[in-house]
Amino acid sequence: MNLLDFLVPVEELVRRDGPEGCVVISSRVRLARNLEGMPFPGRAKKSDRAKALERIQEAVAQLPQMEGGLIRQMDSFSSWEKQALVERHLISREHAANGEGSGLALSRDQSVGVMINEEDHIRMHALLPGFQLEAAWRAIDELDTLLEERLDYAFSAKLGYLTACPTNVGTGIRVSAMLHLPGLVFAEQINQVIQAVNKLGLAVRGLYGEGTEALGNIFQVSNQMTLGESEEEILAKLRKVTAQLVEHEQNAREALLEKKPRMVFNTVGRAFGTLANAFTISSKEAINLLSVWRLGVELGMFPGVPRALADELLLLCQPAHLQLIRPREMKPEERDILRADLLRSRLAAVARPSLPPNHSDALDK
Amino acid sequence: MNLLDFLVPVEELVRRDGPEGCVVISSRVRLARNLEGMPFPGRAKKSDRAKALERIQEAVAQLPQMEGGLIRQMDSFSSWEKQALVERHLISREHAANGEGSGLALSRDQSVGVMINEEDHIRMHALLPGFQLEAAWRAIDELDTLLEERLDYAFSAKLGYLTACPTNVGTGIRVSAMLHLPGLVFAEQINQVIQAVNKLGLAVRGLYGEGTEALGNIFQVSNQMTLGESEEEILAKLRKVTAQLVEHEQNAREALLEKKPRMVFNTVGRAFGTLANAFTISSKEAINLLSVWRLGVELGMFPGVPRALADELLLLCQPAHLQLIRPREMKPEERDILRADLLRSRLAAVARPSLPPNHSDALDK
Repeated sequence: MNLLDFLVPVEELVRRDGPEGCVVISSRVRLARNLEGMPFPGRAKKSDRAKALERIQEAVAQLPQMEGGLIRQMDSFSSWEKQALVERHLISREHAANGEGSGLALSRDQSVGVMINEEDHIRMHALLPGFQLEAAWRAIDELDTLLEERLDYAFSAKLGYLTACPTNVGTGIRVSAMLHLPGLVFAEQINQVIQAVNKLGLAVRGLYGEGTEALGNIFQVSNQMTLGESEEEILAKLRKVTAQLVEHEQNAREALLEKKPRMVFNTVGRAFGTLANAFTISSKEAINLLSVWRLGVELGMFPGVPRALADELLLLCQPAHLQLIRPREMKPEERDILRADLLRSRLAAVARPSLPPNHSDALDK
Repeated sequence: MNLLDFLVPVEELVRRDGPEGCVVISSRVRLARNLEGMPFPGRAKKSDRAKALERIQEAVAQLPQMEGGLIRQMDSFSSWEKQALVERHLISREHAANGEGSGLALSRDQSVGVMINEEDHIRMHALLPGFQLEAAWRAIDELDTLLEERLDYAFSAKLGYLTACPTNVGTGIRVSAMLHLPGLVFAEQINQVIQAVNKLGLAVRGLYGEGTEALGNIFQVSNQMTLGESEEEILAKLRKVTAQLVEHEQNAREALLEKKPRMVFNTVGRAFGTLANAFTISSKEAINLLSVWRLGVELGMFPGVPRALADELLLLCQPAHLQLIRPREMKPEERDILRADLLRSRLAAVARPSLPPNHSDALDK
């Protein structure tokens, strides 16, 4: 089966709105687990990896969550399909590089998934739209419980779950929220906020996770420690910090609109002008401009336009999503053209922004 | 009288279309003359300057060309009014710095004018839209003849007309064409063309003349020598070179549209997107983007939009033209806001560009 036929259509995906969706794009909890008595994937022989893969696939296939889902080996995907899975945050960039001996399971609705033989034998996650860390935790905890009934996990009474990298030992949990923070970026408060979050022992990363840029003012906040705190404590900390970040971001947006309306309208207007009138555009530029436009949509500068349109275009403008809608392999310049054509056509019906009638002529403060 | 009430309204001015107006914005011929037996303005005492001014004003006032025109001393203009005269190319930047003891005469239609006590006692010019060097020459030659009947010019049988700067001695003529050359700039042929023109003994300058930048891809081509060639020879050379530049520019535009349509549409589309959606914009950025948009209008990317709209906005976006429509002095940031508001409102009815239906998907060559 073509992966595209399985993936939730983008226009449907972006309509799955979650709480605080204006700031919190998605909530994610992942657990790292390994099989007892089997070498970790990075050190395993080919035959051991194959054995682990088989055992885990079999166990995962029996889970009710996987009914109607997809269970495949990584070498059955084209590299563009793997890239599309990265763009949807369904697999890690590292897992996209894996082939034979690695696998992937996704539930029908793609809210839960299991990477097999990534860094650990099992990396399972739940991914939900908006601010739903609790729900994501419950979903993955339930899957983990069912899986543990079918598999022997490597577990130490002293350390907890054993993992390939010591940073995951213990609970093996990583709780993260993907946040859209253009207000804090424009207000030049983002670095201060990142430092404060880091001091709480949490990590702030870019759009595609560890070691990636904060493209499009999108930041991932997650726990760094997995040992010494319970899952509930980690979850509670992430929930609290995320709620604070949402508040900071909303305050920053309100303050910008009150104190620097011209700056906001100018930045958003120009971003829209370029998106709606370019005839070639890179994915990086498109994502950065769409991020700014998304803020404008949130601020009511484009009446009647749903945020979902910005989210849809943010996904569709990424290279693999663009490539997969075309039958033949495109050069990067061809994708840049297709991306611009798509943006112009999807934004053709969106009216240009205008200042609210009560807006004063005054300069920004 | 308010200068603005005298100046031809911008919307009327830009409808005065001339031959080859798509490339040749205007044609200009100016003559430098001085009074016999009077020190040049730069060396004259105040009383001598005043005497020269009075004599010339009196003579100019009698000319039929000045019926219904304006004859004023430079200190009667506000500095914004002088700046507006510079933006219309009716006086030099140097003359805008002059006050008491200097003067200006302009015909009712502003096609001919006389600067009094600029660098020379008399700098008279004819300025016509489009490629009309001959007509400009005839107009100024006629004015010069009538003026010479009323004033004693400093003239040497050996050298010709005497001027303050030796570069003007002889004929005192400067013939120039203001050219819009975005095609040559985008095709990266402009430097080569400028070098070739320089080798012919002609100068290439920016939008506001000597020592100014080529804002908005606008270049002035003019003779450098005034001695050793007759007016007719100088005129013939300028006419020939201008005609060649028009041809080169048109070839460059055609070649761009044929070989790099995406690049052209992308550059023009983005320029339009910014102009139509910015909420603050500097005059430099506006002029550069309007120049690109003017090219797009010429190339038919905005069906039904006249080139005059681009020319009108090019004039209106300049600082003094903006300032003079408001009763109170604005800060530069306020002008940037007013400029953006003006552009958005004037471009509101202009539809976004779209590729012609027969345009292929092919990459640029």
